[in-house]
Amino acid sequence: MDSTFRNYLGQLEELDHSKMYNNDFLHTWDKTTNELRALYLVADALRNLRERNVSTRIFDSGLAVSNFRDNSTRTRFSFASGTNMLGLQLQDLDESKSQIAHGETVRETATMISFMADVIGIRDDKFIGEGDAYMKEVSESVAQSYADGILDHRPTLVSLQSDSDHPTQSSADLLYLINEFGGLDNLKDKKVAVTWAYSPSYGKPLSCPQSLIMLLTRFGMNVTLAHPEGYDLMPELVKQAGAYAKESGATFTQAHSMEEAFEGADIVVPKSWAPYAAMEKRTKLYAAGDSEGIDVLEKELLAQNATHMDWHCTSELMSKTAKGMDTIYMHPLPADIEGVSCEHGEVVSEVFDVHRDGLYKEASYKPYAVAAMIFLQKAKDPVAMLKELEQRGRSRWARA
Amino acid sequence: MDSTFRNYLGQLEELDHSKMYNNDFLHTWDKTTNELRALYLVADALRNLRERNVSTRIFDSGLAVSNFRDNSTRTRFSFASGTNMLGLQLQDLDESKSQIAHGETVRETATMISFMADVIGIRDDKFIGEGDAYMKEVSESVAQSYADGILDHRPTLVSLQSDSDHPTQSSADLLYLINEFGGLDNLKDKKVAVTWAYSPSYGKPLSCPQSLIMLLTRFGMNVTLAHPEGYDLMPELVKQAGAYAKESGATFTQAHSMEEAFEGADIVVPKSWAPYAAMEKRTKLYAAGDSEGIDVLEKELLAQNATHMDWHCTSELMSKTAKGMDTIYMHPLPADIEGVSCEHGEVVSEVFDVHRDGLYKEASYKPYAVAAMIFLQKAKDPVAMLKELEQRGRSRWARA
Amino acid sequence: MDSTFRNYLGQLEELDHSKMYNNDFLHTWDKTTNELRALYLVADALRNLRERNVSTRIFDSGLAVSNFRDNSTRTRFSFASGTNMLGLQLQDLDESKSQIAHGETVRETATMISFMADVIGIRDDKFIGEGDAYMKEVSESVAQSYADGILDHRPTLVSLQSDSDHPTQSSADLLYLINEFGGLDNLKDKKVAVTWAYSPSYGKPLSCPQSLIMLLTRFGMNVTLAHPEGYDLMPELVKQAGAYAKESGATFTQAHSMEEAFEGADIVVPKSWAPYAAMEKRTKLYAAGDSEGIDVLEKELLAQNATHMDWHCTSELMSKTAKGMDTIYMHPLPADIEGVSCEHGEVVSEVFDVHRDGLYKEASYKPYAVAAMIFLQKAKDPVAMLKELEQRGRSRWARA
Repeated sequence: MDSTFRNYLGQLEELDHSKMYNNDFLHTWDKTTNELRALYLVADALRNLRERNVSTRIFDSGLAVSNFRDNSTRTRFSFASGTNMLGLQLQDLDESKSQIAHGETVRETATMISFMADVIGIRDDKFIGEGDAYMKEVSESVAQSYADGILDHRPTLVSLQSDSDHPTQSSADLLYLINEFGGLDNLKDKKVAVTWAYSPSYGKPLSCPQSLIMLLTRFGMNVTLAHPEGYDLMPELVKQAGAYAKESGATFTQAHSMEEAFEGADIVVPKSWAPYAAMEKRTKLYAAGDSEGIDVLEKELLAQNATHMDWHCTSELMSKTAKGMDTIYMHPLPADIEGVSCEHGEVVSEVFDVHRDGLYKEASYKPYAVAAMIFLQKAKDPVAMLKELEQRGRSRWARA
Repeated sequence: MDSTFRNYLGQLEELDHSKMYNNDFLHTWDKTTNELRALYLVADALRNLRERNVSTRIFDSGLAVSNFRDNSTRTRFSFASGTNMLGLQLQDLDESKSQIAHGETVRETATMISFMADVIGIRDDKFIGEGDAYMKEVSESVAQSYADGILDHRPTLVSLQSDSDHPTQSSADLLYLINEFGGLDNLKDKKVAVTWAYSPSYGKPLSCPQSLIMLLTRFGMNVTLAHPEGYDLMPELVKQAGAYAKESGATFTQAHSMEEAFEGADIVVPKSWAPYAAMEKRTKLYAAGDSEGIDVLEKELLAQNATHMDWHCTSELMSKTAKGMDTIYMHPLPADIEGVSCEHGEVVSEVFDVHRDGLYKEASYKPYAVAAMIFLQKAKDPVAMLKELEQRGRSRWARA
Repeated sequence: MDSTFRNYLGQLEELDHSKMYNNDFLHTWDKTTNELRALYLVADALRNLRERNVSTRIFDSGLAVSNFRDNSTRTRFSFASGTNMLGLQLQDLDESKSQIAHGETVRETATMISFMADVIGIRDDKFIGEGDAYMKEVSESVAQSYADGILDHRPTLVSLQSDSDHPTQSSADLLYLINEFGGLDNLKDKKVAVTWAYSPSYGKPLSCPQSLIMLLTRFGMNVTLAHPEGYDLMPELVKQAGAYAKESGATFTQAHSMEEAFEGADIVVPKSWAPYAAMEKRTKLYAAGDSEGIDVLEKELLAQNATHMDWHCTSELMSKTAKGMDTIYMHPLPADIEGVSCEHGEVVSEVFDVHRDGLYKEASYKPYAVAAMIFLQKAKDPVAMLKELEQRGRSRWARA
C-alpha cells in the first residue's frame, strides 16, 4: 500500500464519521470538526488513488442530479468530475426545459427526479434565505418519500452554494491550505485575512466569505474579517465564527481596512460581496415582483461600491503580509483583475499573475471535495472501501 | 435465487415475447397481450434486482438518444434512469442547438444520430397526427439505413408520448395497479373511471386517457370513459377500446358525468384533455402558420373549458366510489390542484393530499417501464439474461 | 484473432506514431503521413472490434469535454459516440450557461474544466483566424497547467472544426474512400474534384474544402480544385496542397468550372463555401462590432452567390465523370438539395438520391475518426492495447 495513502487511512480510522453516512452535506457547520477532518482525509485519499490511476468507482450505474439555479462553470465541472469518478452519470435538471414553472411543487419534483438519483447537487445562491430553504425542502421531500416507501433509497444532497454557505468552495480552499502547509494541524495559528474588495459588478453572494470564516476558525486559524461600513455578513454567522475561534483556541477579529487585516497575514482572501441588508431588500423586491425597485437598488449598490475602489489587493498591500508577495493569495475565481477584466477591481494584475498557479491549484481540489462528500454519504465503512479500491487496483485509464 | 424474482421468471417463460426483440415500442396496441404481460414481468424483475442492489447493466458502453419535442421533467428523468440502469449514456438531440432547422430531412438526421445509438426515445405529442408520423418516419429511416448496411445495428425506438399514445405512462400506471392489487390477474373486473376534469390551461394531450382505455380494457378491467360533450377522444381508439374489452370479457362504457363514472369505481383517473376536433383544427392552423387563428382557438377552448368547472374530483365524488377516499386515485402528474396550483382545477387538495403517496408510487414505475421496453428490445433471451444478471451478482452500488 | 483485425495491427506495427501519444489533433497537416496512416488503421480496427461487439473501453471513468462555439448535430453526436466507446462521459461546456462571458480568460476556463478532462473537443469555425487561435490558446493553457503541476495529466485536444481545417470530417471522408476502394494504397492516382457549388445561404466555412485538398494530396490522389472567381481558399493552404501533391507524386490543379473539374473524375465533392476575402472582412466587422456592415456584407455575398447558380451538381455533369452516375459523390451534409431543401442549391435531387447511401456511409466513419484520434493520444502502445481489447473480449452489449 502506498505510504501516503496508508497514512490517510490511519488518521481516518481515528475519527468518528459514522453520521455522515446517508446524510446530506449542506453546510460545514452541520458537521462536527472530526467529520470535517474525515472529509479532507477522504478527499486527499481519493486524489491519491486517482493520481496513481486507480479507479475510484463505487457505482456501476446510477445518477447524480444537478440543479443549478444560477450560472456556473467551475462548480458544474467539479460536480460532473466528482460524481464521474465515483461512477455516476450526471443528469441536469434544467428548469427552463422542464415543467417546473407550471405549478409543480418542490416536493413533487424532488421525488420525481429521485427514483434513481443517488445524489442531488444544488446551487441556489441568489436570494437571501431562498437557497437554504429550497435545499431543506428538497432534502425533507426525498427523506419523506423514502420514509413512505416511495423511494427505495434516500438520495443525499450536496450544496453547491447557497445564500449562506459554499461548502465545496471553502473545503477546496482548506484542502489547498492543508496541502500547502503539509497538514491540517500546521494551519493552527496561521493568520488569515478575509476581506471585502471592490468590484464593478454588484450582488455577489455572501456565501463565499461566510463559508471561510465559519470553516477556518474551527481549525485554530486566526481569522480577521474586514469590510467597508455597511458590507456586513449575516450577523448570526459572524457571531458563530467568533464562537468557533474561541473553541479552537484561535482568534476572530474584525478590522476596518484591508491594511489592518493584511498586517502580518499568512493568507489573504480579498473578494467582493454585497451588503447583507441590501441583499435582504433585493429578495423582498424580487418576491414582490418590483423590477423597478430592483433597478433602483442596483444603481444604489453600484454607486456604493464605487466609493470603495481603494479596497483592492495591490503589491503594496501584499508587502504588509507575513511573506510579502509570497504570502498565499486566494480567490474562488473568476476574479475582477484590474487592467484585465475591468478597469478597477478586486486585485491588480501584478498580484494575480504571481499567484495564478496557486489559485488554479486551489480550484483543483473542488472535484475532490465534492467526491469526498458523496463518498462519505455512500460508503458505510469509508476506510474499508478505500482499502478495497486500492486492493482492487482497477486502472482508471488503460494506457497499455 | 430470490423467490419473487424466480416467480417472475417462471411466468415470463410461459409467454411468447420473441417479436419484441429488435423491435420498436411505439404503442401498446402494436403488441400482443402476452407481450405486454412480459413487459410488466420484466419491469418488476428489473425493479427486484435493483432493489437488491444487483447491477442490471447489459451495456458496457452505448448511447441512448432522447428527442424531446415538448417539455418534460418526469419522462426525461425516467428515460435517463431507465437507460442508465442498462448501462447506456444519454445523449439529447436538442433541436435548438442542432442544424435541423436548416433543411435537414428526418431520414438524414435519424441516421446521423444513430451510428452508435442503441435506443432512441421520442416525445412528440403536441399536434394530432404529427407525433406518430414523426416516430414512424424515424423508425423507417433507421430500419432502412440498417438494411442498406449503413448502420451495423438497428436502433430501436421507444415512444415517450405521441399524440395518440403514452405507453410508458400507462405502463407505469398498470405496474402500479399490478403491485397494489397483488398481480395482473387480480385486476380483472375492477372498475376504472377514466374521466375528463377541468383545467385552467388548454390543449392538454389526448394521449393519456387514450393510452389508459386502450391498455386497461385488455386485461379484463371494466372501463368507463366520461367527458363533457365535445371532448371526444380519437374515435377509432374509442372503438378499439370497446373491442379490447369484449375480447377480454370486460366492459367499456361511456358516461356523461363524473358522478356516473365514479359510481362504484375501484380506480378513478380524472384528468383534463383537449377536444379532439379542436386539436385537429389547431394542427391545421399551425401547419398554415395561422398564429392569429391559433390565438382565437385558444380563447375559445379556455372559454369552453370554463363552462365545465364542475368536472373536478372532490371528496363528495370520491364517496361514491367502491372504497370512498381509499379508492385508488391516479394522475400522471403534475395535477391542477385547487387552492394549490390554481383556483379551480382537476382535483381538490383534500383528495390529492390523501393520495399523494400513491401518485408518487405510480410515477416510480416509469423508469422501470422504460427499462423493460428496452430490455425486451435488446435481450434476445430475456429470461436467460435476467438469470445471468442475478448470477453475476455485481453490486450496483458498493456500499462496503 | 480476426484476420482483418490482425491485418490492421500488422500494418500499424510498421508505422511510427509515437508522437501522437499525449498530443493534440488540431490539423491533419500537423501530422506526418505515417501518423495519418496509423489514424485510419486504428479507426478501422476500432470499427472492426465494435462490429464484432467487443468493448473498446480504455477508460473506467473520465470526462470528455465538448465546446461547440457553433451549432452542430452530426459532429456533436460523433464526439459523443467516439468518446463513449472509449468509456468517457461527455460534459458540454455550454458558454451560454457558464460565466465565461463575465471576463474569464481562456487560460483560466481551460484549466478549470480540465481537472478530470481526458480530452477536449472544440468546434470554432465561424471567424477566420479565431478558431485556430482559440484552440491553440486552450492547448497551451492546459499544457502550461500540466507543466506547473496544477493538472496531474495533460488533457488532449481534438479539433471538431476550425476556420482552417475540419480533420474529423476529412478523415471520415478518407476512411470512406479507403473502405470503398479496398485500401489506402488503392487511392493513388484517383482523380478528385473538389468544387464550389451554389448555396442560397452564405458564409459557409472554408475548412471543409481546405481540409480535403490538404489531406487527399498526401496520399497520391490527383486533386482538382474549382470555384468561381473570387471564391478563393486560404492561399497558404492552396500552396501547401500543391507541395503535398508533388511530394506524393500526384497532381494538384485548379480549374475554373465544374465541367472541367468533373471531367474523368473518380470522386466529386461539390460544396458551397464563402470567399476567403469576404470572411476576413466579416471577421474584422465582427471584431469592430459593426453589425450594419455585416448586414451589408451579407447582402453582397448572397447577391454574389446568386450569380453562380449554374455551379450545381447535375446528372449531366455526373456523366462527364469516370463512371457517370456511379462515380462517388461526397458531401459532409446537410446538402442544399434542389427541390428538397431549396429551389436552387448545391446538388439536384436525382444525383443526391442515387448517392444517399454512400453519403450516409461517409458520415458513419466520423465517430471512428474521433475515437481513433483520442485512442492514439491515450494509448501509449496502441497495437498492444488493441490486442488487449480483443483478448479481453468483453461484450459491449450482452445480448444473451
